[in-house]
Amino acid sequence: MKRGDIMSPYDVVIIGGGPGGLSAAIYAARAKMNVLLVEKAGLGGQIAITDVIENYLGFPSVSGAELVSHFEEHVKSIGVPTRYAYVEKISKERGLFLVSLGEEKISAKSVIVASGAEPSRLGIPGEAEFIGRGVSTCATCDGPFYRGRDVVIVGGGDTAVKEAIYLSRLVSKIYLVHRRDALRAEKILQERVLARPNIEFLWRHKAVEVKGDATGVTGVEVEGVDTGKKRSLSVHGIFIFVGIVPNTGFVDCEKDSGGFISTDENMESSVPGLFAVGDCRDTPLRQVAVSVGEGAIAAVRAGEHVAELEGKLYSGKSASN
Amino acid sequence: MKRGDIMSPYDVVIIGGGPGGLSAAIYAARAKMNVLLVEKAGLGGQIAITDVIENYLGFPSVSGAELVSHFEEHVKSIGVPTRYAYVEKISKERGLFLVSLGEEKISAKSVIVASGAEPSRLGIPGEAEFIGRGVSTCATCDGPFYRGRDVVIVGGGDTAVKEAIYLSRLVSKIYLVHRRDALRAEKILQERVLARPNIEFLWRHKAVEVKGDATGVTGVEVEGVDTGKKRSLSVHGIFIFVGIVPNTGFVDCEKDSGGFISTDENMESSVPGLFAVGDCRDTPLRQVAVSVGEGAIAAVRAGEHVAELEGKLYSGKSASN
Repeated sequence: MKRGDIMSPYDVVIIGGGPGGLSAAIYAARAKMNVLLVEKAGLGGQIAITDVIENYLGFPSVSGAELVSHFEEHVKSIGVPTRYAYVEKISKERGLFLVSLGEEKISAKSVIVASGAEPSRLGIPGEAEFIGRGVSTCATCDGPFYRGRDVVIVGGGDTAVKEAIYLSRLVSKIYLVHRRDALRAEKILQERVLARPNIEFLWRHKAVEVKGDATGVTGVEVEGVDTGKKRSLSVHGIFIFVGIVPNTGFVDCEKDSGGFISTDENMESSVPGLFAVGDCRDTPLRQVAVSVGEGAIAAVRAGEHVAELEGKLYSGKSASN
Repeated sequence: MKRGDIMSPYDVVIIGGGPGGLSAAIYAARAKMNVLLVEKAGLGGQIAITDVIENYLGFPSVSGAELVSHFEEHVKSIGVPTRYAYVEKISKERGLFLVSLGEEKISAKSVIVASGAEPSRLGIPGEAEFIGRGVSTCATCDGPFYRGRDVVIVGGGDTAVKEAIYLSRLVSKIYLVHRRDALRAEKILQERVLARPNIEFLWRHKAVEVKGDATGVTGVEVEGVDTGKKRSLSVHGIFIFVGIVPNTGFVDCEKDSGGFISTDENMESSVPGLFAVGDCRDTPLRQVAVSVGEGAIAAVRAGEHVAELEGKLYSGKSASN
């Protein structure tokens, strides 16, 4: 009987091989749970496409690729079975989860969703080319690399405004480019950002091109929404905050208005035994450090869920497996 | 005017140099906050006295001392001012915190308490000598090192029983030593632990001596509470779960019945601007990974609190500092 068949379910299937999923995998494997890690592309998640990371404790300054290789080495040292496949659907039947990978269905006593989220892009020339070399979607991550320099921020919602306040302490000058004539962020944030002395607001403007050379971004071309008039801004960075979309379409449970999975402090969703960690969760902060902590919590709680389930499923039999 | 004077408060004072405090320090310093780290003894917290750590993502297997040195290097690379002093009291006056270090008082706009907790000890011969070499207070941390071996667990509360269930999947046999004739853990946990096939319960017994040699623990001597009859157990490990005491006596805010600081999901306590992270908090899991994530969250939120306060304190003046 193959592990993952309905009669021989995994203790836990972890969906997503970013920091949250990998940390969960390590905790689950060390607890001797039968664990399967499912990843659609390559391990590492968003950090795999991150240039430099300087805020994950223990690694003063490391490239995203290098950090991923440390994480991979760690998971390999414990021996976590990994499958590269796309999860289409998770359903729950008679207390067991069924994870659909194309034709095949894998059964599990618990599931940890660590499927991440993707920042929305503008889709303008130069944007994709300079991601990680001047184009950023995270001020907490990349802001300190722009100390004393000029940058563009695109967006006008809560995230754009919060990140503008944060960045205004670090950088020399910010051009905040917003296609409307007012911010959408909550009032108190608006007041705070409008009071910052080093932010120039370009209302009813949009970014139309990112320019750069071998050193990275050198400027951003903006255009008046009504006027069509163009202006070239000489900056070293552009931060894009026009939304973030979680990869949670395949899972059915309570989510917030943005599609992020709602959980309790133990990372358990509205469906018992179904956990969510990292960027796909309604987490207070999307950072490697946070995902790694959440992964640990979810794995330990998943272990407790499995122990509880074993009592029900195999009552009378030995509880060990 | 010296930073920390009432007219020139720190943006944030972080109390405790374990993983939670150090992670918070890195996030705060990178956000260009004026930060002071206060530590009573040496950096690292509980991990400084931990033998081997294998579950902090990115470090497959590392000694506690080595991990502390990586953490220290990281904090030094950013340059976080650190003071070695004992915090006697935190009070709040007119929106500012006063942190008492003996005679001196340091002022701050926000405080992150990362002061940790200490597991209670039995105070028996051999216990202190073999801490980290067979004597453990954390099954999630050390359990996997005892695969296929026999161990003793001391205690009968929720933690002892949860950890016994966890360990029973890893080790060969557990002797659970409890001074009473019934467990104090919640009923459902009791049922679950009593069903495990590889746990022998030694009711109304106490551990009286830990024995060992150069290789570590080799046995534990137990004694009947009523009978005084001794028995030698041949084991490689002893896990002690007789309580954990948080270092939170110096701070006045909402705490749970055990003295752990209650917070919301942003790590903010009942006192606005006062945060708590790691083992001293009512956290769902006491692990390096969790503390590191919580430190990041608290620092970012503390930054938001400071920005808010600046609007109030210096209205009319520039909001930058």
